[in-house]
Order: sequence, then C-alpha cells, then structure tokens
Amino acid sequence: MTDPLLQRRARLMGPNVPTFYAEPVHVVRGQGVWLWDADGRRYLDCYNNVPHVGHCHPKVVEAIARQAATLNTHTRYLHGAVLDYIERLTATMGHGLSQAIMVCTGSEANDVALRMAQAATGATGLIATDNTYHGNTSAVSQLSTRRPPIGGYPSHVRLVPAPESLAPLGGSPEAQAGAFAANVARAIAELDEAGHGFAGFMLCPFFANEGFPTLERGFLDPTVAVIRRAGGLILADEVQPGFGRLGDAFWGYQRLGFVPDVVTLGKPMANGHPVGAVVTRPDIMAEFRTAFGYFNTFGGNPVAAAAALATLDVLEEEGLVGNACEVGAYLLDRMRALAHPMLAEVRGAGLFLGAEFTHDDGTPATAFADRLVEGLRQRGILAGRIGRAMNTLKIRPPMPFSRENADFLVDALDEVLAQTEEPA
Amino acid sequence: MTDPLLQRRARLMGPNVPTFYAEPVHVVRGQGVWLWDADGRRYLDCYNNVPHVGHCHPKVVEAIARQAATLNTHTRYLHGAVLDYIERLTATMGHGLSQAIMVCTGSEANDVALRMAQAATGATGLIATDNTYHGNTSAVSQLSTRRPPIGGYPSHVRLVPAPESLAPLGGSPEAQAGAFAANVARAIAELDEAGHGFAGFMLCPFFANEGFPTLERGFLDPTVAVIRRAGGLILADEVQPGFGRLGDAFWGYQRLGFVPDVVTLGKPMANGHPVGAVVTRPDIMAEFRTAFGYFNTFGGNPVAAAAALATLDVLEEEGLVGNACEVGAYLLDRMRALAHPMLAEVRGAGLFLGAEFTHDDGTPATAFADRLVEGLRQRGILAGRIGRAMNTLKIRPPMPFSRENADFLVDALDEVLAQTEEPA
Repeated sequence: MTDPLLQRRARLMGPNVPTFYAEPVHVVRGQGVWLWDADGRRYLDCYNNVPHVGHCHPKVVEAIARQAATLNTHTRYLHGAVLDYIERLTATMGHGLSQAIMVCTGSEANDVALRMAQAATGATGLIATDNTYHGNTSAVSQLSTRRPPIGGYPSHVRLVPAPESLAPLGGSPEAQAGAFAANVARAIAELDEAGHGFAGFMLCPFFANEGFPTLERGFLDPTVAVIRRAGGLILADEVQPGFGRLGDAFWGYQRLGFVPDVVTLGKPMANGHPVGAVVTRPDIMAEFRTAFGYFNTFGGNPVAAAAALATLDVLEEEGLVGNACEVGAYLLDRMRALAHPMLAEVRGAGLFLGAEFTHDDGTPATAFADRLVEGLRQRGILAGRIGRAMNTLKIRPPMPFSRENADFLVDALDEVLAQTEEPA
Repeated sequence: MTDPLLQRRARLMGPNVPTFYAEPVHVVRGQGVWLWDADGRRYLDCYNNVPHVGHCHPKVVEAIARQAATLNTHTRYLHGAVLDYIERLTATMGHGLSQAIMVCTGSEANDVALRMAQAATGATGLIATDNTYHGNTSAVSQLSTRRPPIGGYPSHVRLVPAPESLAPLGGSPEAQAGAFAANVARAIAELDEAGHGFAGFMLCPFFANEGFPTLERGFLDPTVAVIRRAGGLILADEVQPGFGRLGDAFWGYQRLGFVPDVVTLGKPMANGHPVGAVVTRPDIMAEFRTAFGYFNTFGGNPVAAAAALATLDVLEEEGLVGNACEVGAYLLDRMRALAHPMLAEVRGAGLFLGAEFTHDDGTPATAFADRLVEGLRQRGILAGRIGRAMNTLKIRPPMPFSRENADFLVDALDEVLAQTEEPA
C-alpha cells in the first residue's frame, strides 16, 4: 500500500474498508458521464447509479444551492416541497401506492419496510434471496448474503435460492418461476412452523445483486400468489432498477408485471444527495405509523425535497428514460456481437447490462472478469462485477449515456477481451 | 384539521406524523437564529440544534454548492476531503478515539455503534436508560422508550432508571451516582444470567432526552467502573450535546469527565446536511470492520465532507463554543431570576437549558409547560418540552444565539408566565 491516500484512509477509517480496485481511483471532478482523477485523467463512468441524471447536473446543483441558502431545517414543521415531491413520485406508481415516508438512505428505507410488513401482519418472519444485499443497518443486514450480519442469521429470516440465467432453478428457464415460488412456499412453511409467521419477502424486482438473470414478464406471478395466500407482503427494493433505469418501465416491478405492497428507494433518487423513501398503500402506512412513531430528522427536509424534485425534472426534460431504452438496446446489441469463447451470456435491460464469463466447462471465470474490469480501467472506463461468483461484468452508467459512449465502451471492451489472458 | 398543508400531509404521509404544535408553523425561510413563516412572520429559533452554526450559514451553503458542482459520488473511490474531516474531528476527542465511519444520520451511527460493541465483546446484551431516544432503525429503536419498538423490547436489551434532578435515584443528588451504577450492575447481571452477556451501554453524556438533570462531574465514574469490570463498552451518543453546545467542553463526555469507547454523532454535524459518524479506537474499529464489511453509499461523500468541514470552520472562526459558554451562562442567570410559583428548577449548560415546572404538590405541570410553549410561539419564539413528564421547557437554539436573543426570550417568557393559567 504505497498510495499515501490509501495509507491515510487505513489510518483514519480502519482496515477492510470497501473500495473499487486494489489501487482505487482518486477522483476529483465529475460531469455528466465522466469522472476525472487527480492527474487529470478522464474516465467514462459505466458503473455509478448514484449520479442518476449525470455527475454534477447543473439543475440539481442549483436546486440544492438555492434551497440550502433559503431554508434547511428538520421535518416537524410544515413545508410544501416534500409534499410536492411525494405527489409527483407516487403518481408514477399506481396500485394505491400513494403515501411515503422520506428517509436518507436505501438502508433506512428497507429498515422501515421490514417493520411495515411486521406491523401490518403481526408476524415477524422475513424472506430474501440467498445472493443479495439490501443495506447496512442491523436489521437489513440480516437479509443480506453479500455482507453477512454480525452474529449470524436469526431464525426469523429465511433465504431462498436466487434465480439464475445459466443455471436456472428447476433445471430450465421455463421451470424456474415455479421452482422459485416452491422455495418461497417452503420458507413460509418453515417460518410458520418456527412460530414466527410470515411478514414479508424483500426482493429487487431486477435481482440486481443476484446478477440480473434474464426473466420473463410474469416470472414472479407464482411467487406473488404464494405470498398473497400466506397473508405476507411483497417489498420491492427499487434502489437499483428504479427511476427509469430499465428503459421500458419507470419501476422494476412494472417491467416484471407484479404489484408490490411496499416500494423502497435510495441511491439515484436525488442524484447523490442522501435521500431515500418508502412508498406504500394507506392501509399499510396506517398500521406502521400507529405501531411506531417514526420520525426522521433529515428525511425529506427542504433541500432533500428540492434535490429529488430537480432529479425528476431532469429525467423528464431530457427524456432520459427513453434514452436508457434506446441507447441500452443499442449497447446490448453491440455487446451481443462481441465474440469471445468465454463470453457465456450478455443480458440486461435499459442501461443495466451485464456480460457473464465462464470457462470451457461452464464454471465461472471470476478472475478473468476481474482482469477485464482492470483492463477497462486502464483504458479509461469504470465498470464493475456482479453475480454469485462475481464473473459478470456490470454496466450501469449514469442515464445520459450516449451511443458514442456505448461505442467507446464496446470498442474498448473488444480490445481488452482480445488482450486479456485467462489467469493460470 | 383545516390547514390545507396539514390535510395534504396526512393524505401523502399518513396518520400520526410527528409535528411541532397542533397547528405546525409553515416555515419558508431561515437565517442565523431566525425562521420565517409563509405569512412573513419571524420566529426566534430557540429549539433547533440541526442548524448548529445558524440557519443557512453562507459558508456552509457555499461549501455545499461548490462541492456539489465539482464532484459528488459514492465513497469507494479515494477522495481527500473525508480524510481531512476525520483528522480534524478526531483531533478534538483524545483517548485514542482516532478512527471513524461516516454515515448519514445519527440513527445509522447508533446502529453501527451497537454492533461495534457486539463485535468487540462477542456478547449481545445492551443497556440504555428508561427515558431516552437514540434513533429510528429497528435495532436502535429497541433502546428507545420515547418511541417504543415494534414488537416490544427484546430480552437482550435492559433499561435502567434514568437520573433525575427533582427526584434523584437513591433519594438524594449525592446518592444518585451510586444508585445509577448499582442499577447498571444489576442489568448486566441479568443479561449474563439470560445468556446474552454484556456488550455495551449507550447513553447521552448530557442525558438530553431524560431532561438533562443536573449532575456533578464524575457522576458516571461508578458506572464506568462497573462497565469496565464487566468487559462491556460505553457508547456515548453525542448527537445532542456534541460540537460545543455545552459551552465549557466540545463533547459531553469531556464535561462529565469520563472516557467513552465509541462516540456517535449526527444532527448538528453538517448544519442540516445529512451527515453522521461513529468514532472509536483502532482496536474496536478493527473488530467491527473484520466482522462486517460495512459500506455506506452516501456517508462521507465529497459534499458531506465539505459541509461538515465548513461547519467546523465556522464554529472555530466565529468562536461559537465560547459564545455558547458566555451567552448560555447569561441566559441561565436570567432564567433563574424568573419568579413563578410553579418554576421548580432552571438548569442546563451552554446553550442547552431547561426550566422544569411542577404543581404545589411537586407533581409535573405538563399541561402548563405545553401552554408556555404555545404562548412563546404566539410571541414569535420557538421552543420545546422534554423530561419524563414533558414538563420541562427546552431551550436549545442555534449556536450564534446572542445576549439580545436571550433577552428577547426571557422577557417574552416572563410575560407568558404572568399570563398563563394552569389548566383546570
């Protein structure tokens, strides 16, 4: 560890702090889809979903600056902006999802959502998939396998096998929906038997951390039927797929074609300003608000509301959901045209795409995928990895990503593929 | 509910949303110690600790605006500002409290602190007082009596009687420190017996939500000895007393004269920008970071770091800790000179003062205190209530509060006291 910044970081933050790359980029400036490091080197950002409408979008920056100079107090007085925002937000959702609690992070949102399910059902049992991450609080980390909780998994939490593209549950893509639902039904029965009862199933409607396997519209229908029969709630964690990223729908649940009881939001919501939300129906909200006097000091304060409103404005004014649809389709086509013996599948939707790499025998090419990410970085492109074995290249850029950006990425990836050797 | 904003709020946020006043103030602008409502009416803010260095302080606003326009991405790359901040922050703390995790809220900070204690001790048992609030996550709400958790208190949490001014534990102010420690020792024994072991005691070093009883320096010494003997950690929640509010010390634990193992920060840290932190020693940090791969997307991002740095700068440049000391002492004197048969005690430190009201028979004058808050509001002053029976008027203004502001407050309070009748 020769980088003085890395040394300072270890001294001031302790060991084992998650970073991207063994020698992380020292970023100093961002604009649109670009980031610059301290040496003035430019990177095409193909990874970050936080700057949803582009790094440092002037309209969002101006909204933050103006409101911060006018009023930024806590949320126990009355202020119009947060109500304007909830009205705009819930208008996109339908299905009676008309009320919201504003929070500061996706983790806080999911922490509330779990308790909403518990308050509404009177049960405590929770289900998630066995290859996911929903956040960093004590309660939410109990539903996360990518960062297992301190003290292990409690008995009121059950993890069901995640769907996969290359190794689908039930042995085939056709059988997967039923097999997934059968595992959920089994988990519910176990929770009932253990005396916890079933409160809710939290899932990402794009199964983003699971490696976003290709799933047909209606994939969750058998699971939803199982959940409804058991009286539990479906909690849709839209932190990654939401706000139009998938191109053909504003929300992941709309694309998959099911109706959640609770929707949680985070990262991209205010383009980097710490804002999250939990949206639900009035009946569930009343159960939660009666059971717990929830209050969040910063959640939905005037600056948070202004930043989130401006982000929605830019999405609309610049037609960024349409852009995600169009450029995403173009990028998917170009990536699918790449030829490499280890490229097992290219998949995704809108501006959330992946390329999964395997060895001849079908086993995951994890180290190879890692080398690709490093090779792309050397060519000025930031990307990531995902999936159970971290063998899927993950492309999830800011929404103003253009065809030119897509060409730049795929041309570079083509070169990197040609030059990268499988590790011995 | 005739106010259209209140109606909209209920429609969009649900029932039972915490607000100040039955008809909350509709705030639209803030500056320094002043807030303005939609009708242009000005209020002296004697309550809000979030705008620590004053509402909309231009230096903090400028830091936020400049950094938001330059770079605002997540925290897995390298960036210098967050390291500069942690260095500045921990330099004020001493006792090896040299490493920090940046988060977005005090609730997130306390949620981490509880797990630090559990990771460092291998035990799960937690203690808090029986009249407190430490935050809104699932885990943290289990230590809060002011907003009891959904599902009730779990068996690994024990609540000990809070210290009091007018009805001290053990029957006298002198006996209170020992009585408090004895209750903590009993709770630890119960946790051991139940098989949980003892991980940590979370407390506010000013017992702010408990009504900040008057306590001698050294009050916690017997308790600290009990905790150390049992191998548990002391988690100091400095969200309310921290950052110089108490005037004669930058941190509450310094004023009371004890050494915490973990310090948590929130509300005033970045003058309204959602920033919190957990500070601890490297040995505890290593235990936590090894046990859990904690990552917080927004925590300590470039804008958060810039806002927190600017807040520290203003505190120093404007001598606001000295101001809290001087104006606080002046305000305390003036409040103590108020004469009213129901005014049982005036107490506090720096710019965190209270006036407790009781009936002739010593029972809490809760409704009377509520009328005072309403009366002050009618005179353009925002204040609050606290204490077990909510019969203590709570004064906790932004730090640039002046002698003139203090005079305005006390003169108004004098009038309100003269004109307020005890409810029948």
